[in-house]
Amino acid sequence: MAVGKSVTRKDAAAKVTGRARYTDDLPMPGMRWACYVRSPIAHGRVVRIDTTAARRLAGVEAVFTFEDVPDRPFATAGHPYALNPDHADVADRRLLTGHVRYQGDEVAVVVARDRLTAEAAAARVAVDYEELPVVVTAEAALAEGAPALHPGGNRVNTLRFEAGGKVDEVLERADAVVESRYRTPIVQHCHLENHIAYAYMDDMAHIVVVTSTQIPHIVRRIVAEALELPLSRVKVIKPYIGGGFGNKQDVILEPMVAFLTLQLGGVPVKIDLSREECFTSTRTRHATVMRGRAAAGRDGSLAALDVEIFSNTGAYASHGHAIMGASCTKSCNLYPRTAVRFAATTHYANVPAAGAMRAYGSPQVIFGIECLVEEAARAVGMDPVAFRIRNVARRGDVNPLDGHELLTCGLVECLEEGRRRIDWDARRRACRNQDGDVRRGLGVACFSYGTGTYPSCVEIAGARLILNQDGTVHLQVGATEIGQGADTAFSQMVSETLGLDCDDVHVVSSQDTDVSPFDTGAYASRQTYMVAPAVRQAAEALKGKILAHAALMTGQAAANLDLRGGRIVFAGTPEEALLSLSDLALDAYYHKQRGAQLTAEASCKTMTNPASFGCTFVDLEVDIPLCRVTIREIFNVHDSGVIINPLMAEGQVHGGLAMAIGWALYEEMLIDEQNGRIYNGNLLDYKMPTFMDIPDLGCAFVQTREPTGGYGNKSLGEPPIITPAPAIRNAVWDATGVKVDEIPMTPKVLYRYFSGAGLL
Amino acid sequence: MAVGKSVTRKDAAAKVTGRARYTDDLPMPGMRWACYVRSPIAHGRVVRIDTTAARRLAGVEAVFTFEDVPDRPFATAGHPYALNPDHADVADRRLLTGHVRYQGDEVAVVVARDRLTAEAAAARVAVDYEELPVVVTAEAALAEGAPALHPGGNRVNTLRFEAGGKVDEVLERADAVVESRYRTPIVQHCHLENHIAYAYMDDMAHIVVVTSTQIPHIVRRIVAEALELPLSRVKVIKPYIGGGFGNKQDVILEPMVAFLTLQLGGVPVKIDLSREECFTSTRTRHATVMRGRAAAGRDGSLAALDVEIFSNTGAYASHGHAIMGASCTKSCNLYPRTAVRFAATTHYANVPAAGAMRAYGSPQVIFGIECLVEEAARAVGMDPVAFRIRNVARRGDVNPLDGHELLTCGLVECLEEGRRRIDWDARRRACRNQDGDVRRGLGVACFSYGTGTYPSCVEIAGARLILNQDGTVHLQVGATEIGQGADTAFSQMVSETLGLDCDDVHVVSSQDTDVSPFDTGAYASRQTYMVAPAVRQAAEALKGKILAHAALMTGQAAANLDLRGGRIVFAGTPEEALLSLSDLALDAYYHKQRGAQLTAEASCKTMTNPASFGCTFVDLEVDIPLCRVTIREIFNVHDSGVIINPLMAEGQVHGGLAMAIGWALYEEMLIDEQNGRIYNGNLLDYKMPTFMDIPDLGCAFVQTREPTGGYGNKSLGEPPIITPAPAIRNAVWDATGVKVDEIPMTPKVLYRYFSGAGLL
Repeated sequence: MAVGKSVTRKDAAAKVTGRARYTDDLPMPGMRWACYVRSPIAHGRVVRIDTTAARRLAGVEAVFTFEDVPDRPFATAGHPYALNPDHADVADRRLLTGHVRYQGDEVAVVVARDRLTAEAAAARVAVDYEELPVVVTAEAALAEGAPALHPGGNRVNTLRFEAGGKVDEVLERADAVVESRYRTPIVQHCHLENHIAYAYMDDMAHIVVVTSTQIPHIVRRIVAEALELPLSRVKVIKPYIGGGFGNKQDVILEPMVAFLTLQLGGVPVKIDLSREECFTSTRTRHATVMRGRAAAGRDGSLAALDVEIFSNTGAYASHGHAIMGASCTKSCNLYPRTAVRFAATTHYANVPAAGAMRAYGSPQVIFGIECLVEEAARAVGMDPVAFRIRNVARRGDVNPLDGHELLTCGLVECLEEGRRRIDWDARRRACRNQDGDVRRGLGVACFSYGTGTYPSCVEIAGARLILNQDGTVHLQVGATEIGQGADTAFSQMVSETLGLDCDDVHVVSSQDTDVSPFDTGAYASRQTYMVAPAVRQAAEALKGKILAHAALMTGQAAANLDLRGGRIVFAGTPEEALLSLSDLALDAYYHKQRGAQLTAEASCKTMTNPASFGCTFVDLEVDIPLCRVTIREIFNVHDSGVIINPLMAEGQVHGGLAMAIGWALYEEMLIDEQNGRIYNGNLLDYKMPTFMDIPDLGCAFVQTREPTGGYGNKSLGEPPIITPAPAIRNAVWDATGVKVDEIPMTPKVLYRYFSGAGLL
Repeated sequence: MAVGKSVTRKDAAAKVTGRARYTDDLPMPGMRWACYVRSPIAHGRVVRIDTTAARRLAGVEAVFTFEDVPDRPFATAGHPYALNPDHADVADRRLLTGHVRYQGDEVAVVVARDRLTAEAAAARVAVDYEELPVVVTAEAALAEGAPALHPGGNRVNTLRFEAGGKVDEVLERADAVVESRYRTPIVQHCHLENHIAYAYMDDMAHIVVVTSTQIPHIVRRIVAEALELPLSRVKVIKPYIGGGFGNKQDVILEPMVAFLTLQLGGVPVKIDLSREECFTSTRTRHATVMRGRAAAGRDGSLAALDVEIFSNTGAYASHGHAIMGASCTKSCNLYPRTAVRFAATTHYANVPAAGAMRAYGSPQVIFGIECLVEEAARAVGMDPVAFRIRNVARRGDVNPLDGHELLTCGLVECLEEGRRRIDWDARRRACRNQDGDVRRGLGVACFSYGTGTYPSCVEIAGARLILNQDGTVHLQVGATEIGQGADTAFSQMVSETLGLDCDDVHVVSSQDTDVSPFDTGAYASRQTYMVAPAVRQAAEALKGKILAHAALMTGQAAANLDLRGGRIVFAGTPEEALLSLSDLALDAYYHKQRGAQLTAEASCKTMTNPASFGCTFVDLEVDIPLCRVTIREIFNVHDSGVIINPLMAEGQVHGGLAMAIGWALYEEMLIDEQNGRIYNGNLLDYKMPTFMDIPDLGCAFVQTREPTGGYGNKSLGEPPIITPAPAIRNAVWDATGVKVDEIPMTPKVLYRYFSGAGLL
């Protein structure tokens, strides 16, 4: 019925008309405001803290310093609980700290009757610091004798693996070896809705946390851990949320508001971060530096990739090394017939903590790989598209690292579709031998990505369906709508399996961990894939119950009956309705002697993680004297399996492309390497592309049918952001002959490269 | 484990500390207030209505008159939908009316930005009425030529039945026949929390109604019916509620707030009735007049009861004739070996609409019966207790009306326990031949009651259980905690079946009709009985899933395992724990390859309706010159099957006794028979007994084990209110020799009776 159709988003009208209520739209009587006291320096220890003046301010109800909070460290990363303690996230946070590790670190918190008072009081907390040496870069942080941010030193972890061959031997024997160093910046997610959460108690035992989160069930666990409470004493509610991009896959404010309401007798306490706080004191994308080598054969083979990468997780681990673990291993599906070696190190530094951000490290890793591959192709004199078609994954390939076969892979078709669509050969020819100020170039880059986190983490999703009296159904899931359209996709799946109109599937969009089926949340582009089996199983179970009741009502064998278009029909002659679903529902609810409320629930674990694939093609102009890049055409081609909703899928791709253009050309959080000071922690000084900076965006899909997916689908949410940056970099190279190995390619950076190359 | 124990109420601390949030504690930004324009006369037609002045007031956003609302009539009674349209409630209400039928009827509604403005604007709506003749009593309303309140006339319905013999023949042959007329007043429920509801929309399609109701799932249907919307477009949330006693088993404000938000673009609109509005414009207890005859034999047999009763439902039918239907038929279990005949008529009149109130007509009907039985006992010279023991129901008796056998009945034991406890024989002897101003008397009265509404209505309940990661469970039910302790009783049942501590059972106390299991709500003393099979079935299913997962983890056969005290044990040697439930839960949630979230849900219909029984004993003094009754001792003895929670059960009995004393001695809504004016529609002029007026209250239980009950229990919520009034009346007769046949027995009434008897 509905899968594959561009049905209108469930929440579209509610959101554009302003009816949708977000966390800040849900007030409570007696709500208190809490405001952090933040460190003005990037590294130091509090030697004296005086809260007297803050406490004296009328309207201030409490001040807690780092000395007043539980000493228990906890991890904030939004991962499911790991049964194996060795796999647990790094527990390096307390609610507040006396050892400040970045400019903005939290040393105290003030609770007051209103926001202004809380802010004014926070400003009155007098803190003296003993300053400590600051490390900002990988080099500085990992240098011998560097000041340690945490007891174990600044190296969080190093991952090393080699697969598909002996890389050193391949490099030695190769026809061509290329080597380069790449650098990617710290950027911020810049979701529309800042971090906000409040907590209160309706009784003596249970804390209710209302929060803008991607991961309500994980928030529940982490709040309980941070406060040393049984998990069932915490209830998390997720209203509509205004975007997250991974930044709300971290548990940042919730333990604090829960702590405060517990301390203050259950009164509601809210923290509503300003944009500036959200910028510097939530999470960022990890900056990376990478040294890579690639080996190619004259036959066009990509023989080896050798990658050493350093990932800067900032002041706290947050998702820490998981980012490198996930992105390096996921990239092994891209060139599965190539020998690969990775050495990836995650380190602390005195900058804001980095965490999950759309595509979770893959943009950084794939940026390096797709720059290297471009160089390898050139080194053996091959067209970059042809070289990639020669080497990328195909169906039936086996991942060299984990030995899994690719059951679906449409990457070659994606590249061919992109090449046709951009008229690659003709335009490339037209770009040869340019010498004007403004030069044109074409670029391409490929990616592979995963669908979920298995086998690193458990993959579990739940769905519950309720047949209403009017023949419609309500769908309750633990997976979260965070703006990506998940609820609509889920409703299409129910519609497909139950033979109902999509409008007759009502989705409970808010999660309440006390009653929502368990699901770990929105991340890893997992939801549409992981929820599918749960939705399908629940829908099939409900359908079975419906047909059984229809059998009772009609005296027919259930096996002869089917459900189509909201009607009970004979399976063989579906044109004629025996019974409407609403009449059936009324009977099930209200017949005095038979029936019951018909519901079905399923909780499913998934033990597969299919790779999705795709590529970006770009056609751009570089104005060399102005050091300005103008994109003429850019599009992605994706293999995400079956596309559940083409219009929403297109929206995801457009969003990812735009975000990637920001990362490639504009955005960087500027931090002083000497003292860790943040120069542009706000939307005025930080350059995010706006509508004026973004060209028309394109997309296409090569649809495969993933057999392990409930409805044939694979990941789509994050992938669109992965390859625009390397494609743009490769096109700039194509246009100018200058190989820019760092992003963002701002005019300042390009000026340095173009000057160095003698173009200016 | 927990059934039969006086575990502490789940909500006790939350309520006494003020943490529990009720509807009025849940604000919304932009909340609008709505205020009704009410009729100052009891019967008439609006001939002109001018809203100009109201609309001009700053802050007024809308005014709707009876001409602006849907013309569709709907029924407000909180009954489940009836598949048979002949069984539907009387649909005689519109949202507003131009034909006003009682003083307080709603002709218009004003919506404003705040309450004061709404009230001020409502006062500025100018309405001219054409006055119509007023009928207040049964006699006037049913007289020929009486002005008809509704198109079909003032007789709503008449029920006639005869069972257990031919009453006329028995009366003719009887040794003694007694006859009297009885009168009971209009009273108000006076629950702590007034009626309050608000509605809003979070999207374009769905209306959310938050309301203090006993019956959220029924509210959902009736709002949908009133607004002609599909049921699934309405969602009803029930927060903590401050009592209902049946008055919130009616759908009074919810259709209006839903209509207003729909009209006003989804903004939240609240109606919060004042105490005075709640008094006169919600529901009341039906006033009745009854003419009864009883026949007795010299052998002590109660041979026949012949009852004609008129029940005044006021301006609108509301629960209408169902009250008489239920109370007359339920009373047939009391003296099942007696021939009975009932003729019960429900009629309209120009007084506030009567609806459900604790025990749903039984106090009125049983008042008459137990006065008559007292007279019959005296007529054949028998002790009232002995006469009752001779005639009341015993186990194995068959209900003469429906032919059902009484599987449990402890009424004789209740009477014996009461007689012993009050030292009946000795005290009765001491009361003989009194002649002072202050005279003492003893009284007794018996009742039977039902448990639920089957077979009049469908009986259905649902429960869902979720095993939490910490080894506790959450219980979600559709049945409502309205202050009676239902949540605690349910948690005890779960505890009993799952072998968990009661504190480890968390109950979701608020209902949300989108996700709460279906249940028709709190009425008919049905919940503990109806919910039991659903809770038990869900708990057993969850236990099965837990043991199956334990089998996976331990390699043992599930059949050899059991769950005790939160641990998995060998069924045979339960002392040693194989596994804690929390370790099992963690494995089920987080093991990567096995398990799932463990939940279980059950929706159960019940097709039994066991009778519960009991009696009141009272010892009192009458000060004849002061016309004052002072209760020295009063208690009930109940057969409610197994008592789930003795302390809570005692609380129910105390509450019912206190409320009954109010009905017997103090409370009456005074209405002018000429013009329908209400004289005391407020808590200042209406005399509710307070702490000072209520003596120490007693109670005892005779525990039977009802085999059709999930945990052996039968109804208990309403029964305590049924018999104190006739017991008090019989004791006053015993003390003074004066047979008072109307309540409340205020000094004014007693003066009339005592004067008439020559005592004054």
